[in-house]
Amino acid sequence: MVRDEKMKNIEVLAFRFSPTKSFFILDQTLLPEKKKFISINHPRQMSKAIKDMKVRGANLIGITAAFSLAQYTYKNPKAKDILSLARELKESRPTAVHLAKAVDKVLKKKSPLGKLKQALSIYESDRKACDLMAQKAQSLLSKGEGILTYCNTGSLATGGIGTALGVIKKAFKKKKDLHVYVCETRPCNQGSRLTFWELKQENIACTLICDNMLAYLISQKKIHKAFVGADCISLNGDTANKIGTYNMAVICKHFKIPFYVVAPFHSIDASLKKGFSIPIELRPSKELSFYWSQKGADIWNPSFDVTPHKLITGILTEKGFFKSPIKI
Amino acid sequence: MVRDEKMKNIEVLAFRFSPTKSFFILDQTLLPEKKKFISINHPRQMSKAIKDMKVRGANLIGITAAFSLAQYTYKNPKAKDILSLARELKESRPTAVHLAKAVDKVLKKKSPLGKLKQALSIYESDRKACDLMAQKAQSLLSKGEGILTYCNTGSLATGGIGTALGVIKKAFKKKKDLHVYVCETRPCNQGSRLTFWELKQENIACTLICDNMLAYLISQKKIHKAFVGADCISLNGDTANKIGTYNMAVICKHFKIPFYVVAPFHSIDASLKKGFSIPIELRPSKELSFYWSQKGADIWNPSFDVTPHKLITGILTEKGFFKSPIKI
Repeated sequence: MVRDEKMKNIEVLAFRFSPTKSFFILDQTLLPEKKKFISINHPRQMSKAIKDMKVRGANLIGITAAFSLAQYTYKNPKAKDILSLARELKESRPTAVHLAKAVDKVLKKKSPLGKLKQALSIYESDRKACDLMAQKAQSLLSKGEGILTYCNTGSLATGGIGTALGVIKKAFKKKKDLHVYVCETRPCNQGSRLTFWELKQENIACTLICDNMLAYLISQKKIHKAFVGADCISLNGDTANKIGTYNMAVICKHFKIPFYVVAPFHSIDASLKKGFSIPIELRPSKELSFYWSQKGADIWNPSFDVTPHKLITGILTEKGFFKSPIKI
Repeated sequence: MVRDEKMKNIEVLAFRFSPTKSFFILDQTLLPEKKKFISINHPRQMSKAIKDMKVRGANLIGITAAFSLAQYTYKNPKAKDILSLARELKESRPTAVHLAKAVDKVLKKKSPLGKLKQALSIYESDRKACDLMAQKAQSLLSKGEGILTYCNTGSLATGGIGTALGVIKKAFKKKKDLHVYVCETRPCNQGSRLTFWELKQENIACTLICDNMLAYLISQKKIHKAFVGADCISLNGDTANKIGTYNMAVICKHFKIPFYVVAPFHSIDASLKKGFSIPIELRPSKELSFYWSQKGADIWNPSFDVTPHKLITGILTEKGFFKSPIKI
């Protein structure tokens, strides 16, 4: 049970939550041009914000979905649509396992106050998990290294300092003098829009590249290690993450660059034996056809891919390192 | 010597040339939204159009630079700035070896008429080389295959049907029922803007993907072979091509997908022993910082990369197949 002093307001980079009053999320589709918070007053609005990627990142969508559902039940204790709203939230993005787990945890608590405390606890444990992962990973990083990262796995994706990006930020605070290479992360550009912005906020040395420059960059001896996140991990150690992670893993393997996955323990889905079974979200063509001025074009737009465990050097969670197969 | 009946007007997809009168190029930066031809009246204007990528593609920039210089000398037989204009043309894009070779060939001819005929001959032999390459490559393709291509290597990049894309277009005409997967080709999107448009003009079945979807796409067993072009080939068989080609080659190697380079024989630079020596053009940061809304960001923007010969299944020119090392 969460203690009552935990019922405080939360103000972090990605959202502002007052347990019994207001809930605002930072609209990440407007970054880096605008830093604008939007008010979330209903779980259906939350589902749409998740679907539209106004809020994104495996951990963060779990936390914000939990907050939204819990606050709604607290404000509307007689509401009868909780189960259907919960289902909508879970279905808003199918790949990240944390979203469904977080919503189910809130559902399980009977009282509205219990649900609210559960949501706060989900946030709090994510924050702590980020700190722990960052701490445990420090032995992997040496001074002056060139580090590759992908998508956004920082404070814009979690309730704390981040997963893979948290590791990098922590190393920077420990004066490891790293240089971070950030991949654009097509098609939604979470790397160039969000990660680069987040690193700049903290004055961390970084260079932007397009995803297709990886092999050439690594061939120039600029990269020592790669750190990425995960939205779902199957028991054989395959990990689903933002589309393009698989490309990066193959290229790192070719150049013998250690490739680490950093994700909270709850990213492991014990019901999935192999990565093949992880549901992969296909996003609409229009996300690209508009930008490409190719109306009606046949476009394949998977939002995630699955990196086979053979390409992964190690999976780091707050409970320590895991290698294939994962025993839990 | 080119025969006089060759002094005819040329009207192809990428330009319209009337030897002693006008010269128009299709502004490729406006595709696929607008199909607009712009008039080229001076070699300096041509250099700028090449630098700004209004016209692009290794073969095509050689042809259009030659036309522009030859027409200028024909119209201004007493001009004294030919050498400096030729140098500007050659320097407008440093990686494609054909550009420098074509300009030098025009320079070597003494009379203005000789220069004009030389330019026409460069165009004509490129057109024929494209046909020959497409013909020789047909044995590599089987019915119903999924084919990967990169950047644009078609009629928007050459004086004929294209190099790698010419092979694919020819196979389609031979009813091989292929399905082409076109990579976006960041950051200038020659794949999604130009190749997709060109394939659509010819009703060829194709699907657009982002460059970072390659590994996941191939893991879905959708790809049988890859065909790309080259801007420069060193004697050890390393090939420079649009940035991202190296990524694709590494990924194809990982999945054991045959990876073919198709380029005219003149792409081989006999003065370069290894790919390491090929000059790689670095494009300005602003090409990306503007799009990413990251003003002043540290951005690495190489326009090409060099694929090591070990990753290449075969190099096809109009003179046949080559493997490392190339003996000429």
